[in-house]
Amino acid sequence: MQGIAKTFHPLDPLSVDEIATSSRLIREYAGTSKLKFNCVTLREPKKNEYAAWKSNKAPQPDRRAYAIVLKGGSALCATVIVNISNLKVEEWIDVDEVAPTLTLDDLDHLEYNARKDPRVIEACREIGVTDMSKIYIDAWAIGFDDRWGFERRLQQGLVYYRSSASDNQYAHPLDFTLVADTETAEILSVDIRRVNGERTQVPLAEHNYLPEYIGNKYQMNVLKPIDITQPQGVSFEIRGNEISWAGYKMHIGFNYREGIVLSDVSIYDHYQQRQRSLFNRISVAEMVVPYGNPNPPHHKKHAFDVGEYGSGLMSNSLELGCDCKGAIHYLDGVLSTAKGEATVIKNAICIHEEDNGLLYKHTDFRDGGVISARDRRLIISQIITAANYDYAFYHIFSLDGTYKLEMKLTGMLNTYCMHPSETASPFGTEVAPKITAHNHQHIFSLRVDPAIDGPNNSVVQSDAVPSEEPVGSPQNYYGNGFYSQKTPLRTAKEGAADYCHETSRSWDIINPNKLNPSTKKPIGYKILNNNCPRLLAQPGSMVSERAAFARKALWVVPYRDYELYPAGDFVCQSTGKHGHQHNPTIVDWVSRGGSIENTDIVCYMQFGLTHFPRTEDFPIMPAEPVSIMMRASSFFEKNPALWVPASSITKDQTSKNAFSTSTPNCCEGNANSLSAKL
Amino acid sequence: MQGIAKTFHPLDPLSVDEIATSSRLIREYAGTSKLKFNCVTLREPKKNEYAAWKSNKAPQPDRRAYAIVLKGGSALCATVIVNISNLKVEEWIDVDEVAPTLTLDDLDHLEYNARKDPRVIEACREIGVTDMSKIYIDAWAIGFDDRWGFERRLQQGLVYYRSSASDNQYAHPLDFTLVADTETAEILSVDIRRVNGERTQVPLAEHNYLPEYIGNKYQMNVLKPIDITQPQGVSFEIRGNEISWAGYKMHIGFNYREGIVLSDVSIYDHYQQRQRSLFNRISVAEMVVPYGNPNPPHHKKHAFDVGEYGSGLMSNSLELGCDCKGAIHYLDGVLSTAKGEATVIKNAICIHEEDNGLLYKHTDFRDGGVISARDRRLIISQIITAANYDYAFYHIFSLDGTYKLEMKLTGMLNTYCMHPSETASPFGTEVAPKITAHNHQHIFSLRVDPAIDGPNNSVVQSDAVPSEEPVGSPQNYYGNGFYSQKTPLRTAKEGAADYCHETSRSWDIINPNKLNPSTKKPIGYKILNNNCPRLLAQPGSMVSERAAFARKALWVVPYRDYELYPAGDFVCQSTGKHGHQHNPTIVDWVSRGGSIENTDIVCYMQFGLTHFPRTEDFPIMPAEPVSIMMRASSFFEKNPALWVPASSITKDQTSKNAFSTSTPNCCEGNANSLSAKL
Repeated sequence: MQGIAKTFHPLDPLSVDEIATSSRLIREYAGTSKLKFNCVTLREPKKNEYAAWKSNKAPQPDRRAYAIVLKGGSALCATVIVNISNLKVEEWIDVDEVAPTLTLDDLDHLEYNARKDPRVIEACREIGVTDMSKIYIDAWAIGFDDRWGFERRLQQGLVYYRSSASDNQYAHPLDFTLVADTETAEILSVDIRRVNGERTQVPLAEHNYLPEYIGNKYQMNVLKPIDITQPQGVSFEIRGNEISWAGYKMHIGFNYREGIVLSDVSIYDHYQQRQRSLFNRISVAEMVVPYGNPNPPHHKKHAFDVGEYGSGLMSNSLELGCDCKGAIHYLDGVLSTAKGEATVIKNAICIHEEDNGLLYKHTDFRDGGVISARDRRLIISQIITAANYDYAFYHIFSLDGTYKLEMKLTGMLNTYCMHPSETASPFGTEVAPKITAHNHQHIFSLRVDPAIDGPNNSVVQSDAVPSEEPVGSPQNYYGNGFYSQKTPLRTAKEGAADYCHETSRSWDIINPNKLNPSTKKPIGYKILNNNCPRLLAQPGSMVSERAAFARKALWVVPYRDYELYPAGDFVCQSTGKHGHQHNPTIVDWVSRGGSIENTDIVCYMQFGLTHFPRTEDFPIMPAEPVSIMMRASSFFEKNPALWVPASSITKDQTSKNAFSTSTPNCCEGNANSLSAKL
Repeated sequence: MQGIAKTFHPLDPLSVDEIATSSRLIREYAGTSKLKFNCVTLREPKKNEYAAWKSNKAPQPDRRAYAIVLKGGSALCATVIVNISNLKVEEWIDVDEVAPTLTLDDLDHLEYNARKDPRVIEACREIGVTDMSKIYIDAWAIGFDDRWGFERRLQQGLVYYRSSASDNQYAHPLDFTLVADTETAEILSVDIRRVNGERTQVPLAEHNYLPEYIGNKYQMNVLKPIDITQPQGVSFEIRGNEISWAGYKMHIGFNYREGIVLSDVSIYDHYQQRQRSLFNRISVAEMVVPYGNPNPPHHKKHAFDVGEYGSGLMSNSLELGCDCKGAIHYLDGVLSTAKGEATVIKNAICIHEEDNGLLYKHTDFRDGGVISARDRRLIISQIITAANYDYAFYHIFSLDGTYKLEMKLTGMLNTYCMHPSETASPFGTEVAPKITAHNHQHIFSLRVDPAIDGPNNSVVQSDAVPSEEPVGSPQNYYGNGFYSQKTPLRTAKEGAADYCHETSRSWDIINPNKLNPSTKKPIGYKILNNNCPRLLAQPGSMVSERAAFARKALWVVPYRDYELYPAGDFVCQSTGKHGHQHNPTIVDWVSRGGSIENTDIVCYMQFGLTHFPRTEDFPIMPAEPVSIMMRASSFFEKNPALWVPASSITKDQTSKNAFSTSTPNCCEGNANSLSAKL
C-alpha cells in the first residue's frame, strides 16, 4: 500500500483508494466507527516541499489527506491529517466554535423530515395546503441566527409548493422557513412570517420551463445547427491531471470545496526559449450572495456557496453538446461521502478549445497587404448547482498570455410570496404576480498565488491620471498629458485596495527581480477588474462581518501554507469575529501584517455583480456573464503569439489605393465546409 | 430614371447608379466640372416621413443624396442635397469655417509628394537617410495647429523608414513631422523636433511580423484545426439590406462615415405575439484617440477616426476564415470617389452566427433532472484600418434580447523615436530599444436612437445604494438592506451623466407609457457601461474642447433629424468652439435644452479604454476587446428565449442524491462529429 502514492503527481486529488484508506486510518485512530466524514481531501504538500521536489532537490513529498470529521450525531468537530504514504494519522485537532461545510448529504434529509413534522403540516394547512408530498424544501446554510450557537450544526429550509413532481416550485414560494439541526434531524423552529397578523397565500399560478410544459411552443427549425469539429483532434495533451496546450502547462486539481484548482501554471516564452512560471495556484476560494431585503427571514439569506456548500460537492456531471461544444475532454471529480467512502462525479471538469476570433490583424493601407491570425482559447470549466442558482466557472487561457475567469450565472431566482398589502420594491422585483425576487449581489473571490517568473513578487497599483501641470504651462501646454501613477503596495494593510473608476485603476503583479530589457522596468501581469461591485450591506452588518473579504476589490497578503479561504476555513454559522483560533479570515491575515514586497504573496480578487431581478430572469434566468482578467504587462519582450501561423496573408502590390483592398486572393485557415445557403 | 428609386428600401445605401446620378446633377447645378466630391451618401428620410411610410400612411419618401463638395483646388466647401427621385438639387449651402472628412484619396498623395520635397530630403539626409524610396509617411488629420485656419484643408504626416517594401515601418519612426495642404498638395512645414538641439537617430533594428520574416518560427502543428460548419445553412434571412434572425428584424445600412448603421431593430415577443421595436438606429457615431504625451508634436495626435476619416471609407474587404468563421454572408460597401463616381468595397460587412454557450441551465438537485439550452448570437461586423491601428466592430444580438457592441483593437502602435537623453516614461513605454509608444485612450461614442416599444422614451438612472436606515434600526436591523435608487433624467442637461462605480450605476431607457404587467413599472432596456474611462485630457485642453462628447459616459438629448455626430458634422480642424453655425456639437445640443422625458430621444454612450502600451503590443498588437451592452430590463414578461428548444433534458427519478446526477442519458443538440483524440 505504501507504494501506491508514488504514482501520483503531488497535487493530484485523492484517489478512490486513498480516500478509503484515509477513512479507515481515521476510524482506527479514533477507535470508533461512529464518525461522520465531512470531507476527506488532498492535503497539498507545503510549498517549499513541493518546490524542492519540482526542482529535483527532494523526493516526492508524502501523500496526505485532510479530513474534517464529526463525532456521531453531534456538532463536535475535528480536523485530521493522515499521512497516506506511511499510513499514519499525523494530526488530530478538536476544533470548537466552528461548523464545517454542509454537504449535500447533510442537506438531503430536511425535506423528507419536514414533510412529516406536525408544525410544518399545520403551517401548510393554515394556508390551504394539505398534500405534504407537494411541499418541497430547499435546505440552505443558516446564514446567521442568534437563537443557536455552535452546539448545533444548523440549516434553514425555504419552503415551496409543486403542483406535480416536475412543476417549477420557485413559482410557489411559501411564507415560512424552517430551522433544523443537521445532526439530530430535529426541526428546531418553524418561523412563520405574518403580515399584519395574516398569512400569505401561496401563489398558485404555474410558471414552467420544462419541455413537458412548453415544448409545444418550441420553434424547432428557426436555429439551424452549428457544428464544431476538430477532425485532427484537440491541440492539448493530458497526462493524468497535467495538461499542456499551446505553450501553457498546468496541473488541474479538484476538491470538494473549491472545485477546480489550477496549479503550476506556466507559459513557454518563444523569445527567451524557456518555460516561465505565472501562477502557483488559482481557485475560486470563496463567494457570497448577500440578499438586500432587510426584513426577516430574508436577512439570513447570504449564501457562501464555496465555503458553506463546496463548489466541488455541488458540481454537475457534464454532457457533450449540452454544456460545451467541440472535442471535449473530461476529468471526473472524486469526493468523499459521510461514511468516508469515495464517490465519483463523472465528467465534473470539462476541458476544451474554442476559436477565439482575431488574434491580431493589420492591413497596410498602401498596398492592401493584410496579415491576420486567429486566436484560440483553452477553457477548463465546471458547473455547479446551489439549490436554485447554477454557476458555470470558465477558466480561460488565450494565446496572448491572458488568463480570464468568466462566471456565468443561471438557474432560478430565489423567490418569495407577497402579501396583498406588500409591494416588491424597493428590495425586490415582482417577477410574476405576487412573486417577488429580492435584490442580491454575487461577489466571488478569485484566489491567485502568483509566481510571475519566480517566487517573489510585488503588487503595484496603477492609476491613470492627468498631468498635474496646468493647461498652458510649458510642461503641459496643450493639456493632453496623462500617465500611469504607480503606487507600490508594501504591506498587507496597503494590499487591501478598492477599485477606482475615475483612474481606471489596475494592479500589476510584478517580479521586481526581472526587468524587461526594453522598458527596463519589472515584468508583470496586470489584474483587470472593473466588475467589482461595492458590498452594499452596511459596515457593521452581519454580512459585512461574515463576508469581510467582499469589502475590498483586492487583498494582497504574505503567503502562508494552508491559508486558503478568506471567509475562514469554517464558514457555516461563522460570525466573522476576529481572532478566532480555528477560523481566521482575511481580516486576521491582514491584521497580522507583514511585507508584501518582493516576497511570496497571495492575491484575493473580488468580482461579481449586483442583481436587481428582471422579469426576464423568470422562470429561468438567461445566463449572465461576469469576468476578471490577468494580462501580460511587459512580461514578454514582444507579442507572445507570433509563433501562431498567420491565417491570412495577402499582398496586392499593383494597387496604391486602399479602395483596391478588395482583391485578396488567399484564405488559409479552416474555412472549408462552408455552406451559406440563403 | 425616376422609377429607379422605388425599388429601394428607404434606408438602403445609395447604389452605384444613384451616386453617379447625384454627382451629375450636382455638377450641372454648379455649372462646373471642377468639383471635388468629398462624399455622396444617402440622405436618410426624416423620421416622421419614414414612420409614415413604414405604417403605410404615406408613400415611400423620395430618395435623396447628401453630398459635400469642394470647389476645385480650394478648401471652399458646400453641402448639397439632391432629390434623386425627381432629379433635382434641393439645397446648396456654402459652409465656411469647417473642413470635411479626409478621404483616403485626400491622404494618398502626401507620401509621394513629400519624398520629392527638398526640405524633407534634407531632414532625412541630416540623420543619414538618403534613399527617399525608403521613407514612408502616414498621413493624419492635423488634430489642431494654430498656424493655419480653415483657408486650408490640412493634414499632417508622420514619417517612418522601411529597409524594404515589407519591413515594419513602425520600428523606425523619424523625429520630424510634416504639415501639408490637402488641396494644393503643398508641404507647408517640416517640423523637426530637436532634443537639446540635436536630431534623434532613426532606430534601425528590425521588428517584423510578416511571414517572410518570421514564418520559419511558426509552430505549424501545434494548433489543430477547428471547423465550424452549418450543414443546413444559416438561420437568418436577408432580403436586400433587411435581415431577420431568431425573431429580430433590422435594416443594415452603410455609409462612408459611420460604416455600419442598424435601423429599425425590433424583436418578436412570443408572449405578446407581436414584433416590438427596440432601436430606431444604432451606429458608432464618433470616436477619439487622444495621446497623452504633452510634448510637441505629439499634442496634435488625437485622431477622430469616424469624423476625420470615416469608418466606411476605411473599411476592410473581409475574407472567410480570416476575419470570421462559419457560414458567412457579406454585404458590399458602396462609396463615392473624389470624382463623384461609385467605388465598391467588396465584403465590407460580415454577417454570421455563432454558438454562444449556455443560454440557461438548471439542475434539480433532487432528481438530477437537467435542462439547458444553447445561446446563439448574430454578429454584424466590419473592420477598419486607420493607418497604424485596426478596429473591428462587432454588433452582437443574442437570444435573450441583449445587444452588445464589442470593439477589438489591433494593428500597430503609433511609435516615436527616442533621443539618448530621453526616457519613455511617464508618457509612454519603451516597447523596443529606443522606440516609445505613447499613452493613449480610445473613446467610442455609440449613438442609439431608442424606440423601446414605441417612439417616446425616457431615461432613468439606477444606483445601487445601501438602505439609509442604520444597522440595528427596525427597518434595517441586520444592515443588509439595499435597493436601486432611481433618478429620472428630465432635461438634456441632466442627461449628461457620469458613470459611478460605487453604485454600479446603470441607465434604463424606459417607455413610460408601457407597464410591465408583473412589475407594474415601465418596461425598459438597461445600458450597461462600466468600460467608460474618464477623458484624461484636462478641462480646457484642446482635446477636451474638440472631443467634448468624451467628457461624459452618457448624453441624452431630444431627437432632431440629421443631428448625428456629437463632435460635429465637420471634425477636421474643428476647435470645438460652441455655437458654430454649421458645426454644432453635443455641447450645443445640450445647451439648447429641452425635455428628454417621454419623448423622442437619442443617447450617446461613450465607452473604451485607456492604453498604456506594453511590449506585448509590439510589433503587432494582440486584439484587445472592449464592449458596451444593452439588456432587456423587465421589457419582456418572462425569459424571452423559452421558445429555443432545450438541448438537454435529463431526468433520473430513481436517484435521490445529487451525487447521482452522473447518469443523464440524452444529449441533443449538435454534438455529432466529435473526435477527441488524445
